[in-house]
Amino acid sequence: MRAVTFQAPGEVAVQDVPEPELQGPDDAIVQIDASGICGSDLHIYHGRVPVEPDFTIGHEFVGTVLAAGHELERATVGERVLGCFHTACATCTPCIRGDYHRCAHGRTFGHGSKLGDLQGAQAERLLVPRANLTLRRVPEGMSDDVALFAGDVLGTGYHAVAHAGLRSGDTAAVLGLGPVGLCAIQAARAAGATQVFAIDTVSDRLDMARRFGATPIHLTDEDPKRTIRAATAGAGVDVVVDAVGDPAPLALAISLVRDAGTVSGIGAYAGKGEVPLGLAWLKGVTLRLGLANVIAHVDRVLAMVSAGLLDPAPLVTHHMALDQAPDAYALYDRREALKIVLTP
Amino acid sequence: MRAVTFQAPGEVAVQDVPEPELQGPDDAIVQIDASGICGSDLHIYHGRVPVEPDFTIGHEFVGTVLAAGHELERATVGERVLGCFHTACATCTPCIRGDYHRCAHGRTFGHGSKLGDLQGAQAERLLVPRANLTLRRVPEGMSDDVALFAGDVLGTGYHAVAHAGLRSGDTAAVLGLGPVGLCAIQAARAAGATQVFAIDTVSDRLDMARRFGATPIHLTDEDPKRTIRAATAGAGVDVVVDAVGDPAPLALAISLVRDAGTVSGIGAYAGKGEVPLGLAWLKGVTLRLGLANVIAHVDRVLAMVSAGLLDPAPLVTHHMALDQAPDAYALYDRREALKIVLTP
Amino acid sequence: MRAVTFQAPGEVAVQDVPEPELQGPDDAIVQIDASGICGSDLHIYHGRVPVEPDFTIGHEFVGTVLAAGHELERATVGERVLGCFHTACATCTPCIRGDYHRCAHGRTFGHGSKLGDLQGAQAERLLVPRANLTLRRVPEGMSDDVALFAGDVLGTGYHAVAHAGLRSGDTAAVLGLGPVGLCAIQAARAAGATQVFAIDTVSDRLDMARRFGATPIHLTDEDPKRTIRAATAGAGVDVVVDAVGDPAPLALAISLVRDAGTVSGIGAYAGKGEVPLGLAWLKGVTLRLGLANVIAHVDRVLAMVSAGLLDPAPLVTHHMALDQAPDAYALYDRREALKIVLTP
Amino acid sequence: MRAVTFQAPGEVAVQDVPEPELQGPDDAIVQIDASGICGSDLHIYHGRVPVEPDFTIGHEFVGTVLAAGHELERATVGERVLGCFHTACATCTPCIRGDYHRCAHGRTFGHGSKLGDLQGAQAERLLVPRANLTLRRVPEGMSDDVALFAGDVLGTGYHAVAHAGLRSGDTAAVLGLGPVGLCAIQAARAAGATQVFAIDTVSDRLDMARRFGATPIHLTDEDPKRTIRAATAGAGVDVVVDAVGDPAPLALAISLVRDAGTVSGIGAYAGKGEVPLGLAWLKGVTLRLGLANVIAHVDRVLAMVSAGLLDPAPLVTHHMALDQAPDAYALYDRREALKIVLTP
Repeated sequence: MRAVTFQAPGEVAVQDVPEPELQGPDDAIVQIDASGICGSDLHIYHGRVPVEPDFTIGHEFVGTVLAAGHELERATVGERVLGCFHTACATCTPCIRGDYHRCAHGRTFGHGSKLGDLQGAQAERLLVPRANLTLRRVPEGMSDDVALFAGDVLGTGYHAVAHAGLRSGDTAAVLGLGPVGLCAIQAARAAGATQVFAIDTVSDRLDMARRFGATPIHLTDEDPKRTIRAATAGAGVDVVVDAVGDPAPLALAISLVRDAGTVSGIGAYAGKGEVPLGLAWLKGVTLRLGLANVIAHVDRVLAMVSAGLLDPAPLVTHHMALDQAPDAYALYDRREALKIVLTP
Repeated sequence: MRAVTFQAPGEVAVQDVPEPELQGPDDAIVQIDASGICGSDLHIYHGRVPVEPDFTIGHEFVGTVLAAGHELERATVGERVLGCFHTACATCTPCIRGDYHRCAHGRTFGHGSKLGDLQGAQAERLLVPRANLTLRRVPEGMSDDVALFAGDVLGTGYHAVAHAGLRSGDTAAVLGLGPVGLCAIQAARAAGATQVFAIDTVSDRLDMARRFGATPIHLTDEDPKRTIRAATAGAGVDVVVDAVGDPAPLALAISLVRDAGTVSGIGAYAGKGEVPLGLAWLKGVTLRLGLANVIAHVDRVLAMVSAGLLDPAPLVTHHMALDQAPDAYALYDRREALKIVLTP
Repeated sequence: MRAVTFQAPGEVAVQDVPEPELQGPDDAIVQIDASGICGSDLHIYHGRVPVEPDFTIGHEFVGTVLAAGHELERATVGERVLGCFHTACATCTPCIRGDYHRCAHGRTFGHGSKLGDLQGAQAERLLVPRANLTLRRVPEGMSDDVALFAGDVLGTGYHAVAHAGLRSGDTAAVLGLGPVGLCAIQAARAAGATQVFAIDTVSDRLDMARRFGATPIHLTDEDPKRTIRAATAGAGVDVVVDAVGDPAPLALAISLVRDAGTVSGIGAYAGKGEVPLGLAWLKGVTLRLGLANVIAHVDRVLAMVSAGLLDPAPLVTHHMALDQAPDAYALYDRREALKIVLTP
Repeated sequence: MRAVTFQAPGEVAVQDVPEPELQGPDDAIVQIDASGICGSDLHIYHGRVPVEPDFTIGHEFVGTVLAAGHELERATVGERVLGCFHTACATCTPCIRGDYHRCAHGRTFGHGSKLGDLQGAQAERLLVPRANLTLRRVPEGMSDDVALFAGDVLGTGYHAVAHAGLRSGDTAAVLGLGPVGLCAIQAARAAGATQVFAIDTVSDRLDMARRFGATPIHLTDEDPKRTIRAATAGAGVDVVVDAVGDPAPLALAISLVRDAGTVSGIGAYAGKGEVPLGLAWLKGVTLRLGLANVIAHVDRVLAMVSAGLLDPAPLVTHHMALDQAPDAYALYDRREALKIVLTP
């Protein structure tokens, strides 16, 4: 079958790869109808996340069940399904605590041997192991462009907000208006945030944020700290989501959050970074860092998409054929797209 | 000044009463612009909640600060304000825990000597003791009909939902579509409930619930249990709000909630009642009973009203003059009104 | 092999039953070293919980792994293990929420076909399905009498306290000093309860409670309400555990708990019962009913037993041979024993 | 009256200062029986926290009510009382949220004009404003050395553990075994931590930690990371308390905590510091920084001291007269004492 594989930094290929085969009793083989290119695919594309050459990449998908192990309960052959970006064993200590994102045996689709050796979703067909945990039927009438993201970028936006403990009536700010940041805006508004400040430097993204109900603030042309203080009687916002993952936005987040508020750092931090610890301590800030626990949220996220409370469709700026993946990655790398959907 | 006083079961009067006077350093005297008649006023009207004759009743209000103690910080003379239905000391053990509704020294406006001997708000002027805790400025541009309810019925609806731990993406049901139930529907929708089932027997109220985004179910013409099971894959809803306060709706609530779900009993229960304990135990249900902690919520509720996420205005079915209070009570008692606003 | 089977109300037998066989990839066959007789076994014995004749009963066990599926990770052949009283699928919606006790596919050992058709632990050998979720190695040096209860009665006591949200420095009361109530006392003390009132009518149990650090109160010879009010400055205790499961103790629990406190109803309620709803509502009480979620707690419970913070050994009043099971049940039924341990 | 005043960095004096006078209706004047010298007093002593010359310092106290405003309810004249290290207004937005440590009008005893202009407790008499919130009767039979710390160092240790969400059965590590770290060990053990690793370089403090039930680890002679990984099956501990407040211990804390665990940074961080953000993100760590919310905890802390679950008495290494304060500060500055109690 055809699949998008990593070759070398800056180079992906579409090539023939072996067909996936059922292994465990609750595995599924999914005929992919659409797959997405995600910001974390760019980490692979740039060589920052090491993946073996010829390994199939991609981890956002919607498709149709082609074959199923005898214990699969979440769907039957022929049904449209969506999945999460990783699997989990469900029975290790972190899983029992509900921390599926820290599963001792977790496997991420399309991230090479170091993250579980699980071939990716930018392909014609996909093996989904332990699918009872992560696979879900696509609700009646839901389009691919919407279903595609429930188990990845939308779940991540939901997590960023829920993990921060946002309550209806709270205020929030989101730093970095890529797809995750934009989804976090939707999730915060849907959860009853009265005002969500959206901070970035790209005017298209600020416009999209406004469309999603946020108050856009240009990072450098405006003064986020002054604007937010003015709007919150000097207090700062209850919750800040840092969807960038660098020390500078984290420092800004700490300056924007209210006393005893929470900063949710969903963006991928790396290495070490300088943090204004004194200010964070004086304010009594809680920092919650880490990857999203999408498995824990996927049912609620899907219900919210069905109900129209979340809608990632506007994020999809490009549809391309699977065979065009090299062009799609190059285009995505030039930041000319928010979300590209590939169709086999 | 003129005020509405309780006289005897079924009888209220409008009479001259003494002017309120400042006592503590953070007290306020409020010139009442509008006051509401609430379901709990009917308990007084019916004699079920004992109040002395000639005691001024009413506990929902919006007005203008006429005089203020030297420590009042929440507002200054001349500013429009709203208040909560009761006061609290802020320093007793329940208050320090955040349980302002269980304050050891709490006083409820207009509920007679047993509940704190605090004259009510259906009057020309009102003493608000310890106003730093409960008084709030009315946000710019907010109408009386909306501001009036933030510290009472709307805060109660918010509490019913928040106390149940509803998370965005959850489902809910609300039993009893009086003002509190209708406000709970708004609060649940605003907090991200994907579907809220609204159960009552009065078609006007079911219509109002639909208008607020709920799925109406007629209690007797339809089968709430079957409808909700069908809509939730047999599971039941995550949260049920019982806004009635009798054993029968509580039993229905227990039958509608999912396993390990929560029933929030905000309606005023009295005496003893038969409860399906076996079913509640098998399902692992949590029951959270009691009055609303509106002081803890008033800032978030007000922010949500300002942001348009909550809007009690449609509940106001009648505006009447303070002097018409006897007619207003009679009309309310005949259940011909949802909310009556009195203007001095 | 030999096993204790239910025959008819009031009658159990020891008979030859088929050997268990591995089925799933993470199943284990455990050679039973010791099994316990539990209060819920009495429900079966009395015929209140219907179990088929010749069905093997028992659900508390410690033993040695005799055979293991190829995916079993929790233990290897030859290792000493303990288990939980039920299994769960780990992947259904309740399991993903962490509500393993409400698993859609949960199976309880030794409770007949209606509760999962899973043969019991009062036998020479036991099949433990999906053992990665529920099986644990017995820590070095831990005796059978102690390990035996981690996944059942001790986990239930832990749950009763944890589910009520008890914080260190809180006060508690426990109603009903059977094994669950006594374990709840230990769990409350270990979690930092400053005073635990223990209420029953049996002086031996009151003595045991005192030995576990509780303040015993005789239900009828003394006045629990007055004693507890006197000891808590009139407030009542933060948490009450009802380990009986009848309306009368639940009513007492509601009268003993402080305003806005929590009653944890761990005892098995059945049918309907009259509850003082008015009082519960006035106090703003939270009632958390239901079976214990022992799978969620077993690692912490086991760690506490290892550390000496929990110690069920004093509860074991009798050791008997598996073949003496009919006598053991008769003795337990006469309430002459707290805990009987059977050895094959 | 006599009082210890700040003069210049490295210099305190005992001098005559004006008598305190009642101001508000719930103020108290307390005749000081004993006051403590705290680590934060050293920040003043070193000039890092700016305090005006001749300002009375000290914020840990136990004493007897000498005079009381007419609304004081927590104690009457002649009763022994203890207090918290700061006051709060109880009615501002942070206070209503329960964040008394972030009160908009909070005043810290003995910290100069910038922190509320409130004279300190190392004196013969002390004004305690808004004493209904922070003053407590000393329970019958409790010594000064024990009561003294409930509202400061012991409350801080309690907070460090509670704020981290430690559950009974969890494991913990404490970095920095000054009085706060040692109190955190006690609080963790009392809350049911099965193992608490205590890390420092001072052998006396490691010995004290062992005496309090911890497992001591020498920071440099041993390898804390290896030791803790070995003891936790490679996982790390559930909770780490950093009682130092520098970037290096924070980095160590992040390396010691388990995936999705919590680091409670109670030590006073200042300025900026390099943090291993990548590791914290990979692990999904929650960092909770800030001063302790002792007012929220004081009743539970006091109950635990009464019950013998917390006992700071062993921390008191020196008793000195108030007039010896200059010697006491010099001795404390040389780190020759854990806690010095001054008696007027």
